[in-house]
Amino acid sequence: MSMNKQIIQVINPNTSLAMTETIGTAARAVAAGNTEILAVCPQQGVPSIEGHFDEAIAAIGVLEQIKAGREQGAQGHVIACFGDPGLLAARELAQGPVVGIAEAAMHMATMVATRFSIVTTLPRTVIIARHLLRQYGFEHHCTAVHAIDLPVLALEDGSGIAQEKVRQRCIQAIREDDSGAIVLGCGGMADLARELTHELGVPVIDGVGAAVKMVESLLALGLNTSKHGDLDYPIRKKLSGQFERLN
Amino acid sequence: MSMNKQIIQVINPNTSLAMTETIGTAARAVAAGNTEILAVCPQQGVPSIEGHFDEAIAAIGVLEQIKAGREQGAQGHVIACFGDPGLLAARELAQGPVVGIAEAAMHMATMVATRFSIVTTLPRTVIIARHLLRQYGFEHHCTAVHAIDLPVLALEDGSGIAQEKVRQRCIQAIREDDSGAIVLGCGGMADLARELTHELGVPVIDGVGAAVKMVESLLALGLNTSKHGDLDYPIRKKLSGQFERLN
Amino acid sequence: MSMNKQIIQVINPNTSLAMTETIGTAARAVAAGNTEILAVCPQQGVPSIEGHFDEAIAAIGVLEQIKAGREQGAQGHVIACFGDPGLLAARELAQGPVVGIAEAAMHMATMVATRFSIVTTLPRTVIIARHLLRQYGFEHHCTAVHAIDLPVLALEDGSGIAQEKVRQRCIQAIREDDSGAIVLGCGGMADLARELTHELGVPVIDGVGAAVKMVESLLALGLNTSKHGDLDYPIRKKLSGQFERLN
Amino acid sequence: MSMNKQIIQVINPNTSLAMTETIGTAARAVAAGNTEILAVCPQQGVPSIEGHFDEAIAAIGVLEQIKAGREQGAQGHVIACFGDPGLLAARELAQGPVVGIAEAAMHMATMVATRFSIVTTLPRTVIIARHLLRQYGFEHHCTAVHAIDLPVLALEDGSGIAQEKVRQRCIQAIREDDSGAIVLGCGGMADLARELTHELGVPVIDGVGAAVKMVESLLALGLNTSKHGDLDYPIRKKLSGQFERLN
Amino acid sequence: MSMNKQIIQVINPNTSLAMTETIGTAARAVAAGNTEILAVCPQQGVPSIEGHFDEAIAAIGVLEQIKAGREQGAQGHVIACFGDPGLLAARELAQGPVVGIAEAAMHMATMVATRFSIVTTLPRTVIIARHLLRQYGFEHHCTAVHAIDLPVLALEDGSGIAQEKVRQRCIQAIREDDSGAIVLGCGGMADLARELTHELGVPVIDGVGAAVKMVESLLALGLNTSKHGDLDYPIRKKLSGQFERLN
Amino acid sequence: MSMNKQIIQVINPNTSLAMTETIGTAARAVAAGNTEILAVCPQQGVPSIEGHFDEAIAAIGVLEQIKAGREQGAQGHVIACFGDPGLLAARELAQGPVVGIAEAAMHMATMVATRFSIVTTLPRTVIIARHLLRQYGFEHHCTAVHAIDLPVLALEDGSGIAQEKVRQRCIQAIREDDSGAIVLGCGGMADLARELTHELGVPVIDGVGAAVKMVESLLALGLNTSKHGDLDYPIRKKLSGQFERLN
Repeated sequence: MSMNKQIIQVINPNTSLAMTETIGTAARAVAAGNTEILAVCPQQGVPSIEGHFDEAIAAIGVLEQIKAGREQGAQGHVIACFGDPGLLAARELAQGPVVGIAEAAMHMATMVATRFSIVTTLPRTVIIARHLLRQYGFEHHCTAVHAIDLPVLALEDGSGIAQEKVRQRCIQAIREDDSGAIVLGCGGMADLARELTHELGVPVIDGVGAAVKMVESLLALGLNTSKHGDLDYPIRKKLSGQFERLN
Repeated sequence: MSMNKQIIQVINPNTSLAMTETIGTAARAVAAGNTEILAVCPQQGVPSIEGHFDEAIAAIGVLEQIKAGREQGAQGHVIACFGDPGLLAARELAQGPVVGIAEAAMHMATMVATRFSIVTTLPRTVIIARHLLRQYGFEHHCTAVHAIDLPVLALEDGSGIAQEKVRQRCIQAIREDDSGAIVLGCGGMADLARELTHELGVPVIDGVGAAVKMVESLLALGLNTSKHGDLDYPIRKKLSGQFERLN
Repeated sequence: MSMNKQIIQVINPNTSLAMTETIGTAARAVAAGNTEILAVCPQQGVPSIEGHFDEAIAAIGVLEQIKAGREQGAQGHVIACFGDPGLLAARELAQGPVVGIAEAAMHMATMVATRFSIVTTLPRTVIIARHLLRQYGFEHHCTAVHAIDLPVLALEDGSGIAQEKVRQRCIQAIREDDSGAIVLGCGGMADLARELTHELGVPVIDGVGAAVKMVESLLALGLNTSKHGDLDYPIRKKLSGQFERLN
Repeated sequence: MSMNKQIIQVINPNTSLAMTETIGTAARAVAAGNTEILAVCPQQGVPSIEGHFDEAIAAIGVLEQIKAGREQGAQGHVIACFGDPGLLAARELAQGPVVGIAEAAMHMATMVATRFSIVTTLPRTVIIARHLLRQYGFEHHCTAVHAIDLPVLALEDGSGIAQEKVRQRCIQAIREDDSGAIVLGCGGMADLARELTHELGVPVIDGVGAAVKMVESLLALGLNTSKHGDLDYPIRKKLSGQFERLN
Repeated sequence: MSMNKQIIQVINPNTSLAMTETIGTAARAVAAGNTEILAVCPQQGVPSIEGHFDEAIAAIGVLEQIKAGREQGAQGHVIACFGDPGLLAARELAQGPVVGIAEAAMHMATMVATRFSIVTTLPRTVIIARHLLRQYGFEHHCTAVHAIDLPVLALEDGSGIAQEKVRQRCIQAIREDDSGAIVLGCGGMADLARELTHELGVPVIDGVGAAVKMVESLLALGLNTSKHGDLDYPIRKKLSGQFERLN
Repeated sequence: MSMNKQIIQVINPNTSLAMTETIGTAARAVAAGNTEILAVCPQQGVPSIEGHFDEAIAAIGVLEQIKAGREQGAQGHVIACFGDPGLLAARELAQGPVVGIAEAAMHMATMVATRFSIVTTLPRTVIIARHLLRQYGFEHHCTAVHAIDLPVLALEDGSGIAQEKVRQRCIQAIREDDSGAIVLGCGGMADLARELTHELGVPVIDGVGAAVKMVESLLALGLNTSKHGDLDYPIRKKLSGQFERLN
């Protein structure tokens, strides 16, 4: 297999620089030697993503970053928010593969366990995970979606409280859920996976790492986003106002 | 039943004024006597919606209009594009009911026929209809989704060619699909429903009218968007840049 | 929109006159100004409907009433029992739209919340609700079906005990179910919806009102039951004995 | 295994005596030595069943016969119309097992082939088969439902034309459908199964025979209809008018 | 119906002679007078089946026995382990019908109750039952799968402890599950069904008996495994080594 | 990311050495620099896999190879037959990740296209693909499964006829299926993917390469097969006869 340098853009769809760094670090920790990770976030948008409204705004930032990433030579893209905001739109815009972290984590979970649980942040993000499970085909592979009931940015406050809550919820899920693996339901939890996997003795899956490896895999196989049909480039039309940047 | 004046905002998510007018006219044609229709479209955005990328952009316009609509006293909202772009985000933002035209048309179709067909514009919009069918629970009630293979704005070029193609496709669907009703898959087809219903002798359903009546129904029943849980108002956070308007 | 007088027949499929009145009152409370509500029940049949056997009997009463309703000029019909007994048969017999109250309430619930709970009467009616959820496509939108474990007619005994049990069960469901709305699972609960909506602060949906508005909506859109295919008028054949009335 | 005499009641839900005889003959042809077949049909009702309206009427006849059958000592019951009209209601009323012929044929088909096709009579009965497939869990096991486009009673006109059409449709289905077996979609086709199985070299399954064997099997295993919960006997209440016979 | 002698081979896929005897006895207890039960088990293999690995090994024993059974004149075959190991492979190899005990019990359960529960042995066999429910189409008919947390062979240790645990779990399931029937999830429980049915007053279904009656039914109807398409005899190819016996 | 040497065992479940070589070459062509590919096949078994019977035999060979692979230091395993024979059993036996080629290809296809088609060998293998689609959750992501109607080993006869048929079928699928990608349905087609991707301009996915990259990804993420619950090591029991090797 060739070892040409390749750039994978990892997009944190919210505007939190701290989380972008957490995510970038997690991505680099698993990236192949020939992969350069370009960890970015939108300049304008929403500081954390905890509902459909936040997701709609974040999707624009994702698209702008995809465009910028292509111009910077990125061959593949990761959307590093567990709701995979703007995923199909991003695939239209991109030439290379685009993988969401919810998607990647869920896919991988089905390969190491018959059924998995998800641990996420606020209760209102649970419905987003449920919709994705159904869209991706994994509703029968997931036994439960749990929320620790702390906001996303609590993961970046330095106190470690949110991290401890995630850990406790994972332990409880393993004991009660009849699941063989845990999927971490937020990009901000990316740094916890390896340690929890070790401590709990079951696969605890972070989507950021999973998505980076998935994009690397697709690139190694020469598989880009299909431009035949549904995911073809957007039909060129005059975007106006704030969206001119996307022209 | 009380007959207080009520305002229903009908949002055309694209920036085409012609289509906004078509939609507004269709909405007014079925609205109750005490309903004022506020037909609007975003000032910035995409001239027509024919894919996921277009939808992501349009969703922002929808949200801005929902916010404006609330300030103008609208009690309910219609999202008048067949992909129902931004629907759940709009529900978070709104107090009153928000209904998408795809949703409304599909729901109504299941009440007048055991199974229905959809006639839409470009082939790449078919996948959007399929995803909605699955999300709303109607994949077993729809026999086929057909595309006339003309862009959305062909419906507004005054030639009548697109309209004739829709008509032909409906006739063919009735003959071949084993369906009892047709759902028109674009807000720009709103003016065709009643005539085609008459000519074809089967229910041909336009989502604009359907959604207006659905919002009126919800209002009459005192049913607003649930603010308990998933669809609660967006958590307040500082939106930056182009999104400040949504603060 | 035209404001011609229109008659909507609301059929209570059981023979309880008290419940027919409750239902009729609920229907009139939400009907449009130009709608006349014709609240009827079969002269022969079963005093309350709490199982499949009761439903089979009630279906005949529904059909006889649909026939009578058409002769009396009714343009649309509501089947006001939460099992929607005889719904597809009634659609064959009717020209105008026919809407069941379970159906209408479930459809509307999906438009104001991502997921809903149902509160019904006896435990043995739960399976009927489950089958309808699956038939209508809403099994993924309903989190739970609860029974208060009192018979249907307890709602008409004047003691208010059943009503209080419904209220308590709704409160518990909102607290425990991860649902944003409640669907009331019996026509006899029709008068509780508006008050509970107000008290609980979440949409509590009564199917009687929902179905009346749905029929009005379909009529306003010119949408009658499709006579193309599956729901065409029954093939004329000589009905014998007690069924001659349906000839 | 004990060989006590047992009575299985085979109910033709329509009033056609010729079809009752066809069905009775088919039932007796496969019944065990100790099984007495009681082939009956309602005295009042509909001469053939080709839609939901016909089914609603037929369900009453089924219930009256179940009641009569119990009084005559029948230990089990077959509902011999492919829509299985009144099945769950009949199970409430019966003590012993009740099996529908659609159900029985579909179950057996999944045991001799990975996927099967159905050949039925009029196109409007196709939706009934589809709904049953979904209710019973076999929508993924059925590749196609075909209609010969002749009414049910054409099978009893002595010309053999309908029988030849069934045969042709079966041959075509085997050639085109990617199915390993055929389910005959009407009680009136019961006499064709064995011959077609032989001629076509694939299992062609008649529900009448299948249901008789299924009831015999349940009886041999001591399995009656569960009276715990959903299928318990109907709650006793005063049935009025034409339904008094069911008290 | 003819009463020719017929041989049904009942294959215990594990190598436990005690369990083979339990199974054989249960089979003979329900077999028709003209049915000879040939109860066999592989000479080589696994002493009990409690996971996918065990099932893969057991499948070879099943195939060898099917081949031997055909040579001994068996007209039909039962696979008497609740995971139905090797079922589709066995159908390819067999001429007559092949029925698994999980399959048979689940099918029958849906005919005597609207929903059922399963009581099995070790927790790790639960996933096998779940996969079968989905494959056979019964995931919506099963409310719960319970494990008594004892190994399969505890049922043959003569202490009666496992049997008592099964009994307790059935009682609890009936009380808590909202199910009308119980399916016993292990061939080694075959002797408990009739007694538990009697004691609990609900249908408790043993798959061994169910499968024997199902095979007898298929044989009486002249229905063999379809050799058209997917289940045709294996394409002849040179099997090597330990598998030569299967040539 | 560390670049320690790692061994991935690629198991061709049939005994064809030519196909093992094709598969090994395809695996090495995409493997990372630090991955050593151990391409193996069973010594005893079936020369090609074209049905459930063949799969049952092949599963034993897979298990024996997994055991041998672990002893040889393999950290991960690929099952290189499109039916993924023995997958869950292999996961029980293995410590590291085990990925099937059907599974891997299907997962990857959903990330580069909204829907995909499968091109396989003999028609009787189609049902195997269908069952896997359902088991893995991808039945809604696959539009069609096509068979070229040539046996597996035709891919190894050196004539290129089978390869040309695959190519033609892919071209036709892209034209007719409304799919954005093709999954090649046989390990023996592994060498065709890259060329066809280039020629057809759509992603054509070979499962061998996909599975190798998936195993590498799981290893890089520290994710082994979960030993908590369902996929725990087989319970130790005395395997007899030909299976002693698996003790």
